[in-house]
Formats: sequence, C-alpha cells, structure tokens
Amino acid sequence: MTYELYYWPGIQGRGEYVRLAIEEAGADYADVARTDRGMSAMMRMMGGAEGTPPFAPPFLKAGKLVIGQTANILLYLGSRHGLAPKAEAGRLWIHQLQLTIADFVLEIHDTHHPLGPSLYYEDQRAPAKRRTEEFWKERVPKYLGYFERMIADRGGSFVTGRRLTYVDLSLFQIVAGLRYAFPKRMNRFERDIPQLIGLHDRIAQRSRIEAYLASKRRIPFNEDGIFRRYKALDI
Amino acid sequence: MTYELYYWPGIQGRGEYVRLAIEEAGADYADVARTDRGMSAMMRMMGGAEGTPPFAPPFLKAGKLVIGQTANILLYLGSRHGLAPKAEAGRLWIHQLQLTIADFVLEIHDTHHPLGPSLYYEDQRAPAKRRTEEFWKERVPKYLGYFERMIADRGGSFVTGRRLTYVDLSLFQIVAGLRYAFPKRMNRFERDIPQLIGLHDRIAQRSRIEAYLASKRRIPFNEDGIFRRYKALDI
Repeated sequence: MTYELYYWPGIQGRGEYVRLAIEEAGADYADVARTDRGMSAMMRMMGGAEGTPPFAPPFLKAGKLVIGQTANILLYLGSRHGLAPKAEAGRLWIHQLQLTIADFVLEIHDTHHPLGPSLYYEDQRAPAKRRTEEFWKERVPKYLGYFERMIADRGGSFVTGRRLTYVDLSLFQIVAGLRYAFPKRMNRFERDIPQLIGLHDRIAQRSRIEAYLASKRRIPFNEDGIFRRYKALDI
Repeated sequence: MTYELYYWPGIQGRGEYVRLAIEEAGADYADVARTDRGMSAMMRMMGGAEGTPPFAPPFLKAGKLVIGQTANILLYLGSRHGLAPKAEAGRLWIHQLQLTIADFVLEIHDTHHPLGPSLYYEDQRAPAKRRTEEFWKERVPKYLGYFERMIADRGGSFVTGRRLTYVDLSLFQIVAGLRYAFPKRMNRFERDIPQLIGLHDRIAQRSRIEAYLASKRRIPFNEDGIFRRYKALDI
C-alpha cells in the first residue's frame, strides 16, 4: 500500500512528524499536495460530506482510511511499522508523550502568533516578543526538562529505553527546529539537555533519516512554518 | 475497578471531559486531588522516575496503568465503556475529533492568556482583547462550523450518527463553557449552530449527566478554569 500524505506544500509544519515516521519505516508514500493538482485534491477531501473529512492537514490516506491529527496518524503508523510498543500500556504511553509534544508545538507556534493564527506576525510583533520571553523562561525548561528526564531515567538510547519510537523522531524535529528558529537561545540552553541533544544526533545518523534529510523530500525550514527565525525573538 | 482521576481540585478544566465520560459510563471513580492529601499524591506521581509519569494533569489511574493527556484517557475509556466505536476506523475517527476539540480548548484558554500560561490575565488584558476578537471572528465559526456540519451531514442525534460517543459529551461541555464565558457573544452566535445546541440539550437531559450536573461532583465554572467570564472580553 502506498500512503497518501496531505499537508500544506511549502512547509514542514505538523506534516513533518508524519514524514519522519514514514521515512524511518521505509514505507511508500506520496506527498500529495506537493504534486500537480494535489492542493485541490486536499481541499476537496476536507470539504467532503461523506466519510471522515478532517478538520485540517495533515491527514493520511491509508487504503480506505482517512486519518487526521498528527498524533492520531502516528498512533496508526506506530503499530504498523514497529515504531511503538505493541501492548496497550506502551502504546498509550507513547501516544501520551506525542500529545505532549503536540502541545509544545502549539506553544512554539504561538511565540510568533500570540494573538492567533489568523493575523500576520507583523501585526503582533510586541506580544510575540513578550510571549517568546515567557516561552524560553518557563515553558521550554518545563517541556524539554520533562523529556530530558524521561531519557535519563530509562538509561537507554531512546525515550522508552532501548527501542526507537515515533516520539524519538518527533523530538529530533523539535531540537532541529528550535536550533533553526532560535540559534542563540538554543545554543545557551543546550547544556541543560545533553540527553536530548544526544538523541537528536543519533536520529540524524540513522541511514533512512540521513538520506531523507539530504533529499528534496525534506522541505527546508522557512518563515511560513512553525519554527521561524525572527531576529527580534532570538536574543 | 475504581478509577482514580487526578486533576487540579478547584476547576473543571481539562479534567471535565474525563469526568463527563466516566459519569455517563456509570463507572466508579475517585476525584483524588479533591480529597485529603490528594494534591500531594498527584504531585508525587508526576515527579516519579519509575513507570509513566505524566507531564500534567489530568491523568487517570486504571489498575496499574497511569494514562495522561485528556484525549488519550478518553481513547482508553471509550473502548471500555461503549463510548466509542469498536472497529479501528471508527476509533481513529472519534479520536481525531477529540483531538480537534483539544486544539479548540487550547485556543479558548489563549483568549485570556495570549502571552502564555505563566502570566496572569491581569498582565495581558490588551492582547487578550485582540485575541478574543480574532477568536470569535475566525476560529469559533471554523471549529464549531466543522462540528455543526458533522452532525448535520450524518442526520442523527450525535456526531457519529445514532450512537453517543465521548466526543458528544465534550461538545456539550464546549457549548456550556462558551455560554458561561461569553454569554453575549454566544447568544448571538447560537443561531448558526442549531445542531450543536440540540446536541447540548440532549446530553444535558441524559439521566446520569443530569444527576452529575446537579451534584457536588460538578465543580462550578469559575475564573481559574479554561472558560472564564471576563466582561471586557464579552461584547
């Protein structure tokens, strides 16, 4: 089966957590909205009255299934491609960690969009500055400290210990994204999260991920995505 | 088995979506943090090195399992108490809808906390006003319009058609909460969402929910929760 991934074509965004999982699994997929007429196909599926029309991208078509919400897609893919434990307890645990990452991703987005997603960054520069200050003072240490502790307490190479899950791939993306968006702040902060940095480096060296990152399938970071490099926010 | 729910004792908050599901299921549970020494038990579980320490409340102890993240808890409860379809496709669909509600809940929270959760509302009144404007202009119609369409297209009493799921209970809470927090705005908006209002009313009349709402187990809405009534934001 060839998966069909639907996501905004110009950004990594939330689609990237799905791409990393599919790439690591070595599964076939089409990144539909980046192909000819893919965008209109995506919009048509969201507007449909039948079936399970998603609220927003990303969503994944897997045979007859149409699955929306990033963490939900990973829940589905995880059990099919050995990227999550098989037993219920482990599956729920990994999913919980992914949902915590999803909350963090929304807070990352809100650093440049504190007044909401429908206004431009240029219309909310001052609140963005204040929110970013709070974000780095309170939220980054809380979220990344939590994941740092999970890796340290388990004494393995990955969040759950010895086996890679989709959560590890998502944490790779978080570290890479924060490095892109806030190079100065992240540079200072990295000494507090040695486990996460080690995890990031191990993921980057996995053969399929390394090949993906070097390919055109990986969209470069840019200022339309979740991780944006705005000088005013990185002091 | 008696479930143990852990959540901040003074507010409905995200714990309420779990409470509504457990109450509708007629299952036994203790609302632990509202009991003597319950708060310290909650903090201890979050700080633990062993097992699966949650990032934040709410979390549910079910036998040996400790499950965090509201939508994840509902995923677990749904399949055990007939509050979600049994087949995978239906389970993923309902979970996707719940995750969309979770996104909406975070945006509701951000109307009074646009600069982040670690500052007081009083420190962010002006941005809160602007965010609330955008919220009602763009986001409420988008989110509630989506759920309105789901109910209308399926022609049943509930979001999935004929059978109640935990998503319906959560949508009840969304309508009740918006009515509490923004009585004027919601009063004007309700004509656009007749299906959701009908759903709210049907849920409120279910015998277990009706009994729950009249009991002391239901914490009243207040200005520490997600839905807050601030006159300046309700015009």
